[in-house]
Amino acid sequence: MGKRANPPIIAFQGERGAYSELATRRLFSPSVQFAPCQTFELVFQHVDRGEVDFGVIPIENSLAGSIHQNYDLLLRYDLQIVGELNQKIIHNLIANQKTTLSGIRRIFSHPQALMQCQQNIARFKQVEIVPAYDTAGSVKKIKEEKILDGAAIASELAAKIYGMKILKRGIQDNAENFTRFLVLSTKSPIPRGANKTSVVFSVKNIPGALFRSLSVFALRDIDLYKIESRPLHGKPWEYLFYIDFAGNQTNKNCWNALQHLSEIATFWRVLGSYKRDEQRAGR
Amino acid sequence: MGKRANPPIIAFQGERGAYSELATRRLFSPSVQFAPCQTFELVFQHVDRGEVDFGVIPIENSLAGSIHQNYDLLLRYDLQIVGELNQKIIHNLIANQKTTLSGIRRIFSHPQALMQCQQNIARFKQVEIVPAYDTAGSVKKIKEEKILDGAAIASELAAKIYGMKILKRGIQDNAENFTRFLVLSTKSPIPRGANKTSVVFSVKNIPGALFRSLSVFALRDIDLYKIESRPLHGKPWEYLFYIDFAGNQTNKNCWNALQHLSEIATFWRVLGSYKRDEQRAGR
Repeated sequence: MGKRANPPIIAFQGERGAYSELATRRLFSPSVQFAPCQTFELVFQHVDRGEVDFGVIPIENSLAGSIHQNYDLLLRYDLQIVGELNQKIIHNLIANQKTTLSGIRRIFSHPQALMQCQQNIARFKQVEIVPAYDTAGSVKKIKEEKILDGAAIASELAAKIYGMKILKRGIQDNAENFTRFLVLSTKSPIPRGANKTSVVFSVKNIPGALFRSLSVFALRDIDLYKIESRPLHGKPWEYLFYIDFAGNQTNKNCWNALQHLSEIATFWRVLGSYKRDEQRAGR
Repeated sequence: MGKRANPPIIAFQGERGAYSELATRRLFSPSVQFAPCQTFELVFQHVDRGEVDFGVIPIENSLAGSIHQNYDLLLRYDLQIVGELNQKIIHNLIANQKTTLSGIRRIFSHPQALMQCQQNIARFKQVEIVPAYDTAGSVKKIKEEKILDGAAIASELAAKIYGMKILKRGIQDNAENFTRFLVLSTKSPIPRGANKTSVVFSVKNIPGALFRSLSVFALRDIDLYKIESRPLHGKPWEYLFYIDFAGNQTNKNCWNALQHLSEIATFWRVLGSYKRDEQRAGR
């Protein structure tokens, strides 16, 4: 991918070495320009204003579930999903060169990463758990503050970028830990080979409305990969539905399904058609 | 409700004065014994071990969406949902008696409450936002630490309990802010008047499986109130579905639907039948 002068600029949330950077390097190339952002919303903003070429955001983790804030931002910003990637998450215990395993009294990381390593962390006796806003950011912190009795949980890439030591590799409790990332762009042509489409819609608040909206896919043998619901603001207990389905929106069959959906939905928008990452993609 | 010696003991998450206590007082009576817990999991544990009579947990907010941790805990613990309540959330700016609006330099609260008051908070110039683990807990904090240049965002009840002053009432940005609470109990008879049922299930990873499982309700004109999906651990990109539907599991029609569901689902469990809170319940 790439649409203006090389190397393209890619925005992601987190410090250099974040798992999002790992995904970005695999999706593009390690030679792109990285634009780390403090928040997910800043990633959307930079893409929206054309200040970067693409944004890369996590949308779902196979253990923790959906990243709901990014679902909400997909609705608020009129961007297009143009790609996806399933990234295996391998957490490592990272420290300054002089730190030893037995000398660790504090462990820093993002709450999500800390939770995913809970059982392995519990083996350390008398260790304080310190939540940080970012995995790679916690590596940066123990480096900059020269913390010798602490370690951070982050990617191997973060250890490399900040020149730190990996004390223990793969300390996550569950090996089957994947994060699915999406590539965002402003309005652009549908990527070649696109075989997956994401759509968001709301339905009339009447019995059977969700069933009817799913029928537009089922009646045409269109496979659903995912359904996600989010609250509709201002209408308590009504929902927006996000559906990922097999096919390209320009295929006749999918186009018919979307036309059928428009008869049922009070609101709908295609978020993009893109090539599905088949690696570790499940069915 | 009440099943052993009076007054019954009710567990909830948060400090005294939490929104969960507000819900508990309305669900039972202000004269029950309150058992505030630090975490949601402790609420489930206390109910499970019979150390309290009931637990009250938030399951969904009309602005922020589902509280996914509690969906996961409903699966892990074999408890029963025996009631629900829709509680209007009114956030207040609370301070020590000597504090004035113009003297506020710091605002403390739970991140969720801070987010829901974002626009109103932004009107205060040069004020530091300090996240706390609990709304009522932040009132307790500014009282105990005698913080005079700070205020907390919490319920009117919290102000009352800690003898604090309400500087500004209703400072949430969106008036339509409701939280739905569930009452949990160990195995007990289905409450009288139960007209809503919650079920959790997983389906075979084949095309159309979700559609077929929704059809068991649609084909019998059973109205769905909510669908929620959560990741299945160990099976990346497969999901558990939580559905709330109209009716009592012992009604012939609902019983037939659940039998039909059992033909399609690889796993299913009824989480409980209970009386729907019709107030502000939407459709």
